[in-house]
Amino acid sequence: MANLIPIWGVLAASVVALLFAFIFYRQMMKEDEGTPTMKQIAKYVRNGAMAYLKQQYKVVAIVFAVLAIFFAILAYGFHVQNPWVPFAFLTGGLFSGLAGFIGMKTATYASGRTANAASKSLNKGLKVAFRSGAVMGLTVVGLGLLDIAVWFLILSCFYDINTPQALVTVTTTMLTFGMGASTQALFARVGGGIYTKAADVGADLVGKVENDIPEDDPRNPATIADNVGDNVGDVAGMGADLYESYCGAILATAALGASAYFQSGAELQLKAIVAPMLIAAVGIILSIIGIFTVRTKEDAGMKELLKSLSLGTNFSSVLIAGATFLIMYLLNIDNWIGISCSVIVGLVAGVIIGQATEYYTSHSYRPTQKLAESAATGPATVIISGVGLGMLSTAIPVITIAVAIILSFLCANGFDFSMSAEALSMGLYGIGIAAVGMLSTLGITLATDAYGPIADNAGGNAQMSELDPVVRERTDILDALGNTTAATGKGFAIGSAALTGLALLASYIEEIKIGLGHVGRTITNVSGEIIDGAQATIPDIIAYYNVDLMNPVVLTGAFIGAMMSFLFCGLTMNAVGRAAQKMVAEVRRQFREIKGILEGKATPDYSRCVEISTKAAQKEMVFPSLVAIIVPIIVGLVLGVAGVMGLLIGGLASGFVLAIFMANSGGAWDNAKKYVEEGHLGGNSSEAHKATVVGDTVGDPFKDTSGPSLNILIKLMSMVSIVMAGLTVMLH
Amino acid sequence: MANLIPIWGVLAASVVALLFAFIFYRQMMKEDEGTPTMKQIAKYVRNGAMAYLKQQYKVVAIVFAVLAIFFAILAYGFHVQNPWVPFAFLTGGLFSGLAGFIGMKTATYASGRTANAASKSLNKGLKVAFRSGAVMGLTVVGLGLLDIAVWFLILSCFYDINTPQALVTVTTTMLTFGMGASTQALFARVGGGIYTKAADVGADLVGKVENDIPEDDPRNPATIADNVGDNVGDVAGMGADLYESYCGAILATAALGASAYFQSGAELQLKAIVAPMLIAAVGIILSIIGIFTVRTKEDAGMKELLKSLSLGTNFSSVLIAGATFLIMYLLNIDNWIGISCSVIVGLVAGVIIGQATEYYTSHSYRPTQKLAESAATGPATVIISGVGLGMLSTAIPVITIAVAIILSFLCANGFDFSMSAEALSMGLYGIGIAAVGMLSTLGITLATDAYGPIADNAGGNAQMSELDPVVRERTDILDALGNTTAATGKGFAIGSAALTGLALLASYIEEIKIGLGHVGRTITNVSGEIIDGAQATIPDIIAYYNVDLMNPVVLTGAFIGAMMSFLFCGLTMNAVGRAAQKMVAEVRRQFREIKGILEGKATPDYSRCVEISTKAAQKEMVFPSLVAIIVPIIVGLVLGVAGVMGLLIGGLASGFVLAIFMANSGGAWDNAKKYVEEGHLGGNSSEAHKATVVGDTVGDPFKDTSGPSLNILIKLMSMVSIVMAGLTVMLH
Repeated sequence: MANLIPIWGVLAASVVALLFAFIFYRQMMKEDEGTPTMKQIAKYVRNGAMAYLKQQYKVVAIVFAVLAIFFAILAYGFHVQNPWVPFAFLTGGLFSGLAGFIGMKTATYASGRTANAASKSLNKGLKVAFRSGAVMGLTVVGLGLLDIAVWFLILSCFYDINTPQALVTVTTTMLTFGMGASTQALFARVGGGIYTKAADVGADLVGKVENDIPEDDPRNPATIADNVGDNVGDVAGMGADLYESYCGAILATAALGASAYFQSGAELQLKAIVAPMLIAAVGIILSIIGIFTVRTKEDAGMKELLKSLSLGTNFSSVLIAGATFLIMYLLNIDNWIGISCSVIVGLVAGVIIGQATEYYTSHSYRPTQKLAESAATGPATVIISGVGLGMLSTAIPVITIAVAIILSFLCANGFDFSMSAEALSMGLYGIGIAAVGMLSTLGITLATDAYGPIADNAGGNAQMSELDPVVRERTDILDALGNTTAATGKGFAIGSAALTGLALLASYIEEIKIGLGHVGRTITNVSGEIIDGAQATIPDIIAYYNVDLMNPVVLTGAFIGAMMSFLFCGLTMNAVGRAAQKMVAEVRRQFREIKGILEGKATPDYSRCVEISTKAAQKEMVFPSLVAIIVPIIVGLVLGVAGVMGLLIGGLASGFVLAIFMANSGGAWDNAKKYVEEGHLGGNSSEAHKATVVGDTVGDPFKDTSGPSLNILIKLMSMVSIVMAGLTVMLH
Repeated sequence: MANLIPIWGVLAASVVALLFAFIFYRQMMKEDEGTPTMKQIAKYVRNGAMAYLKQQYKVVAIVFAVLAIFFAILAYGFHVQNPWVPFAFLTGGLFSGLAGFIGMKTATYASGRTANAASKSLNKGLKVAFRSGAVMGLTVVGLGLLDIAVWFLILSCFYDINTPQALVTVTTTMLTFGMGASTQALFARVGGGIYTKAADVGADLVGKVENDIPEDDPRNPATIADNVGDNVGDVAGMGADLYESYCGAILATAALGASAYFQSGAELQLKAIVAPMLIAAVGIILSIIGIFTVRTKEDAGMKELLKSLSLGTNFSSVLIAGATFLIMYLLNIDNWIGISCSVIVGLVAGVIIGQATEYYTSHSYRPTQKLAESAATGPATVIISGVGLGMLSTAIPVITIAVAIILSFLCANGFDFSMSAEALSMGLYGIGIAAVGMLSTLGITLATDAYGPIADNAGGNAQMSELDPVVRERTDILDALGNTTAATGKGFAIGSAALTGLALLASYIEEIKIGLGHVGRTITNVSGEIIDGAQATIPDIIAYYNVDLMNPVVLTGAFIGAMMSFLFCGLTMNAVGRAAQKMVAEVRRQFREIKGILEGKATPDYSRCVEISTKAAQKEMVFPSLVAIIVPIIVGLVLGVAGVMGLLIGGLASGFVLAIFMANSGGAWDNAKKYVEEGHLGGNSSEAHKATVVGDTVGDPFKDTSGPSLNILIKLMSMVSIVMAGLTVMLH
């Protein structure tokens, strides 16, 4: 009899996470929101953000409805898919959207309160901002595990999970809720990213560059839109994004576990399935403990603050590393030491990538300082050097991931180099669980990540409410800190996307087997025997479909995959470019036509700018997102399994590297500007500053629109292929 | 008895090419070089260029000596390599360097003469420039085929080419001369690219942007260095580059032919080997005919000129398409219609990619015009839009190559979808011969390509010699035309690199088999029998080494390969950035310290700038080039065959797409600037112009340093792997 107790434990952990999220939310809401002006501005931003999110969810709802109907037809009309797929898909989208919504709601309530708390002391500001970030972190992990646990419990009522085949079916079905999450995340990232960067670029170009007024100045018509953008892009977008990463990693690993232990019977299989969930569950509890350790002395400076945040994260990481061995031992899973080591490999790889990201993008280190120095020769050399920096910065993360792939593979299969079917399945499970390890601290890393935009908005609020400059100084310290933690967070997001992408690639093979079972196909296995497709091993499928590097279809797929990353970035970059130009035109128009804005005698028409960003984001997000969904479908239909595998590996390899490049170039440009603003190289309003502002502006869509969307693209293409596997098999 | 007559025919064609190159060279030398000032300036540039090339060849000679000794040790000490390898390697490097040297020598003699001819009429200017370009085109193809034919004849004296095994040995040995050519080409492209762009960026930033003096103004201290740079980068670099592409495609196809027809006996094999050489040989003759068709009426405008050039190229293309069927029919090769179709597929794909490149980079079309319009909102939006444009522009070329891969594969194997060993070998041969088809018109396309920098330099000469402005206007027309043909040429170079890269990937497998033979290894083939490694088929090798997409080693290799493209670009971008900053500092210093330069009363110190570029290029080119050579060696030693294959496909897919992106973004930025300079959007010295100058400056290293080097990188990594295959096999 299968043991479901661990699943109930996972469910409990998810409820605990949501409970603490609620507690932190209530604590934050009790804080004072400050003066009437502050309240007013916070309300403007909140309303703008909510209005946008509603609009966006309307568009996304249509896409979801169409896709769900399509899946229903495949499931009920053609019987090439599991009947639960349309529902799983919808819940994934719903929960992902919910995570973004709650995070954003919290953030928009928290920013005014953070500004007010910061007017008392830095430490108070940190506490409000960080605890509000924790609401987001815990909501994401809580909703993620909740969805996973509830689905598993529901499906266990309909399938006899004491049979190995049922467990494979259940876990692969649940993967489709990952597709819902990925689809939602892509729209959120792309739409939010376009919104925020159109507003940001527009506000900066006309405000800072042309009229020399500071950031977040109330005279700038785009300033409210800019602050709204931080919420819809950096908060709601990021929430949906990491929800997707988190669930994707756990679900893919569970599916690989079901397959790897297929021959060992349902009991061992179930252990492999719950292992990633348990690691995530324990990660939640330890993250909550970590969150409570974040506190500073009243007179803390930047260094102490960073130390305090790092302490929280590192504390959680070390605890998880230890706890992993304990869980695996108690779970009594085969090769528990090896599998625990795979988890640790992922955890360590994440930390290394985070550190490398910080090294390349923080202005405490030479690369960004050198980048700033290149501003002495103007904007062109800033761009050249920034592109160079970003490209170089790909080396360490890629090598780290390369080593992590091999190590986690070998740890999990007991250093079996044979590439037998069993060694392969076990090893791939190891890669998946390494991704889970990397994301196990998400509760707290996301808290340190999400608090950044809250502090940023708090600064905006302080500036617009014309509070004492010391408040802005304090929120700037919090914001700068947020930049560093955000860089680390991005490293985790990208690294885990690469590992999860590989796990999904392996899950695709599982889904192909199920598809072969659905259509009742027999295949010739590697030993030359004719067997049921559903009984095939990974090497059988690989051989049957010639998924090797000399098959021109695989090579073609790889080219198209590599192109997809660039095409997608090109589309989103251009979207930001177009939207920003509209914003610039509008801001210029207001300065020209509404007399007295610059003297502070007339109020700009904020709502017009909000409207431009909203419309542009709505319009521009649809095409790139649809391309991401449709291309894998077409490749599957035309080129078959080998083409899809080529597409996925091409997209994964180039998308991963491109994402690091774009994120790090963008981050370094941002901080090079901050370095100059801190008084180096001539400081504010020097020529060098102008040059770095150009770099920062270019970096905006790099790091906040195109770059992060790539993480989702990589996984969404796999998810789409997985869901479409049944149809692909039928045709090929 | 094997029939060597076709090889003698190939040799004859190569001699004809060199003969015509010599004739055109003599014709050009007979032209008048103009006034003493013009002669003086041409001499400055020539001497600077020659001095640089000597320096560069010294450094490269050391690298070649070290590598040749290394290969000699592998061949004579460890017996893991053919004894001819070190010599073949050296001749490849020598001839590649020679092609660059002759092309550059011609160009530096031609530029003054072109300026002088243009002072008489546009048509005369075109004739001198274009015929001089033809010297380069014919030298490259002539030397390439000469090297190939002579090596084949020499080796046929030492091996009994009536046996299939000997033909495989001969053709794979010859591949190593491709590695020599690639190594030389990489140094030439990287060194030349850094030289030219350091000078160009430096000259533009201080001259145009800061002091508002025109391009090529004699008051600018960096102007001679800039003109020298055009020669060492765009002429010598491009010559070595395309020499490498040309030989690589032919040699890889010959090796695949030897393997594909292995079972059919030496006679059929030899036909498959000479087929690509014959196509190339006929291409030479038809290119020469095409070159003679390029002439215009005396009062011709830009449109007529372009028509005239296109006519030459199209005429040659159509003739080659027809001739291919005839050659293949006369050669009586198996499936002659199918193989001819593969050639045509390559030819057509090249034309489509060329057209797409023109569409995205010429300011006659909307994309570049829109890019120019984004200048209204400053340099940041120019950069964002240019990056977006370049990324979007990857779609058509990639899809074209994807279709070309599948079609040329299927045409050559008679639409055999079975993926049997035979179908695979034949199909891969088809992909190789498609690359040869794409490059068959190289004699004339390179002429239209190489004439651009000559016209550019002629303009520089006219400006510095203060000739009548009408001369500069005429050379500008020629130069603008050169930009368009250069874009098309780049499309060919990139497209053929992708196809050749795939052919080299297949050749790598051949080399692995030979390596297995060397060490006397037996392997289990796909039918489960134990056979000699040397007798294995492609599927046997694939299965033996698990070169499939579920092998984590392959996946790891793919990640590293994708990273290599970015790392390499990052290194070269940074090199240009650093060198340009030095140049800017020097030009500023001269303006500051040498009184009267800007008033034209004092002569700037040109030689100091030449020295800076030379030193920077020498210093900066070594590290990226060594990385490109060493990484594949390390991957081979550590990860084995599967890792290398992953590395190559990852590098190929992402490098191909990245190269298109960088070339097209750079080209579009250049032409967006020209569009503004033609009087649109406010024309010269408007804010929009300044913004497009920033774009152009950023685009310089994109399109002339990092982008084109990627084509070589892709192939060099394969070549290194091929040469190191013996050692890899010994260890794995």
